[in-house]
Amino acid sequence: MRPKIYLTRKFDFAASHRVYNPAWDEEKNREVFGKCSNPAGHGHNYELEVTVAGTPDPETGYVIDMTYLKSLIDEKVIQLLDHKNLNVDVPFLQGKIPSSENLIVALWQQIQALLPPGVELVRLRLQETPKNCFEYYGETLPPH
Amino acid sequence: MRPKIYLTRKFDFAASHRVYNPAWDEEKNREVFGKCSNPAGHGHNYELEVTVAGTPDPETGYVIDMTYLKSLIDEKVIQLLDHKNLNVDVPFLQGKIPSSENLIVALWQQIQALLPPGVELVRLRLQETPKNCFEYYGETLPPH
Amino acid sequence: MRPKIYLTRKFDFAASHRVYNPAWDEEKNREVFGKCSNPAGHGHNYELEVTVAGTPDPETGYVIDMTYLKSLIDEKVIQLLDHKNLNVDVPFLQGKIPSSENLIVALWQQIQALLPPGVELVRLRLQETPKNCFEYYGETLPPH
Amino acid sequence: MRPKIYLTRKFDFAASHRVYNPAWDEEKNREVFGKCSNPAGHGHNYELEVTVAGTPDPETGYVIDMTYLKSLIDEKVIQLLDHKNLNVDVPFLQGKIPSSENLIVALWQQIQALLPPGVELVRLRLQETPKNCFEYYGETLPPH
Amino acid sequence: MRPKIYLTRKFDFAASHRVYNPAWDEEKNREVFGKCSNPAGHGHNYELEVTVAGTPDPETGYVIDMTYLKSLIDEKVIQLLDHKNLNVDVPFLQGKIPSSENLIVALWQQIQALLPPGVELVRLRLQETPKNCFEYYGETLPPH
Amino acid sequence: MRPKIYLTRKFDFAASHRVYNPAWDEEKNREVFGKCSNPAGHGHNYELEVTVAGTPDPETGYVIDMTYLKSLIDEKVIQLLDHKNLNVDVPFLQGKIPSSENLIVALWQQIQALLPPGVELVRLRLQETPKNCFEYYGETLPPH
Repeated sequence: MRPKIYLTRKFDFAASHRVYNPAWDEEKNREVFGKCSNPAGHGHNYELEVTVAGTPDPETGYVIDMTYLKSLIDEKVIQLLDHKNLNVDVPFLQGKIPSSENLIVALWQQIQALLPPGVELVRLRLQETPKNCFEYYGETLPPH
Repeated sequence: MRPKIYLTRKFDFAASHRVYNPAWDEEKNREVFGKCSNPAGHGHNYELEVTVAGTPDPETGYVIDMTYLKSLIDEKVIQLLDHKNLNVDVPFLQGKIPSSENLIVALWQQIQALLPPGVELVRLRLQETPKNCFEYYGETLPPH
Repeated sequence: MRPKIYLTRKFDFAASHRVYNPAWDEEKNREVFGKCSNPAGHGHNYELEVTVAGTPDPETGYVIDMTYLKSLIDEKVIQLLDHKNLNVDVPFLQGKIPSSENLIVALWQQIQALLPPGVELVRLRLQETPKNCFEYYGETLPPH
Repeated sequence: MRPKIYLTRKFDFAASHRVYNPAWDEEKNREVFGKCSNPAGHGHNYELEVTVAGTPDPETGYVIDMTYLKSLIDEKVIQLLDHKNLNVDVPFLQGKIPSSENLIVALWQQIQALLPPGVELVRLRLQETPKNCFEYYGETLPPH
Repeated sequence: MRPKIYLTRKFDFAASHRVYNPAWDEEKNREVFGKCSNPAGHGHNYELEVTVAGTPDPETGYVIDMTYLKSLIDEKVIQLLDHKNLNVDVPFLQGKIPSSENLIVALWQQIQALLPPGVELVRLRLQETPKNCFEYYGETLPPH
Repeated sequence: MRPKIYLTRKFDFAASHRVYNPAWDEEKNREVFGKCSNPAGHGHNYELEVTVAGTPDPETGYVIDMTYLKSLIDEKVIQLLDHKNLNVDVPFLQGKIPSSENLIVALWQQIQALLPPGVELVRLRLQETPKNCFEYYGETLPPH
């Protein structure tokens, strides 16, 4: 029997955003989103933890080389977010309200597409401030 | 299909307690609970993480407004614990040994009663010291 | 003899900025400031530590009531920065490049003006990312 | 109904290792493991979180006395790892490549054997650096 | 020339206290100290950093053996504070309001008396909550 | 008047070492250094904070570009230490007992030589474990 191990790698990116629904006027945005809808935006040091699972290769003792996993996600995902404005600069967020809920689902799709066979994406954890964070396990619920 | 997202908000409170079973004499308390049963008590900076789950509203990108969630739990729960003595001052702990195990179950009941429809309480994590913590997922087991 | 004690209180604010010199064209800004000059900006969870010094009042054992110090700086300074754009929204940064060096000097002036007699501002520490921070002790040097 | 509570205790140990497969020559080790296979080794401050689950005893409010749990694992497991070389000094790692994946599975076996009845081992989390960690839940998968 | 090196060792203790001046009635205590004067007390996980300075011994490369420094302070100081009530249980705090300012000055006297020749106490840093801390460098100011 | 600002950048490296004086036999080393002298070594995740001071350039608002400072120290210093054995692999530690005291003095000499004019090295802080750290301010004392 082969043990199933979960590996987590932590990433950081510094980005700005404005929580804003373009279908609403400024007043409704301010009423619903409060300070998070400041017209000139605000920003965060986001921390992203990516957890993948698999079984170790008996020849290396590794599920996947952490240095390789780091480079892959850094180059293909973090570089698109770091020192950027989430409302304007990020191709995979176009047309989405940049809440952490929407960001984490978009990140799931980006990262899942990068992983080699035998390495399963099982959890993303996105910390927006020292006081709050968001997790996604790829689960979906049926429509209402 | 709608993604299921887990939101965690962190709270702090500074409280004192004494682990003590009033059905036992002082000697038995000292024997079983050791330094945790010091007669004049001791205290901690507790950290409480509250995790709720739900699906984002397409109009806001939010499962629930974190600022609202914070205010709700701060006012109705944390204010009852912060700068208090858990053996004496807290209505929902009356008659209970204030171990972290009993505290986290009591917190579950308090917090679950506050949440609006569509927002499910899924995990509490209570850190008592930098070296130990307790989690509760609301599961219950049948009696022996 | 009265002991001199240093008290530090930590504050957080989430803000966006763009490091940008308006006297230069876009190309020169990009060349000098690199990713920090992204036109649509980026952001940080800033942590500010304010250190004041004084001698404890024998009747209270306090140099200054921390709860009072916190409210004062929160209301008069942090509220002007939190969920704001440092290039646009902050009165005391108008006309300044919002580098952390310039921000910390401006914060010194704002905070020093608020403190009651007998409480001396001795250090500000501003953390911009988990990897870097800036300190200012109010020293000034003569011009070249 | 009795609640099921999860208790986590954190441990630290400072150890050296070299990721190295003795069936390969130096060149192949360097090619596959890179800097992690430096011939004279390197090291880490490992953090180990041990999570156990159970139901609180009504007389104590405890699942298990944390002080007892700490002493047990410190004496029987951490003392074998702290200030040691994982390739050479640790009886339960003999003949294994000391990757974190292999280390966490070996730790599971050591710790599970120590726990008293009614206290179930449910998770180990091993942090190797501030940027990466490994989790094991005792799950095994069928062979290919 | 011999370099001067500063060594810091961190300690933790969990204690309760009540900020209270016995020369005042309950109402005045509540008015001045607010929630910190809750009659049944409250508590904290205190973190104490002890910084000493000296020059390394050429034969050992050490200013002082950290393991020895730790044992000394643990046994003679931390054991008197951990899992105690600062208003009642601590010999060296008798008759003092247990504010962090008074606590840190009392700790200075206790720790300074323990250190061997050639090892100078230069700083204590006492963290009361994740948001505030107190430092003392042994400085005294002249009376008013 | 120009303000003097202190900038700190944090670095990490994972290294092994053995505290060992080659002029002594094994028994004396074990007696003096205890577990730190384990023959096959042990290791740490070291954290190094480098603090430099200077006055901001009015055209950039920077004392020094942090990205440049990071690359410089990473390439010339951290690469020589990360995933290395401090007793064997590091040119600037040859012939020295690799205590943190000796390491921090050697790091001072390496880093000071790299800094451009107008940027002064003022403090190194080396954390060896989560519980201890070492600081050096470049001071030297006269010989006995």
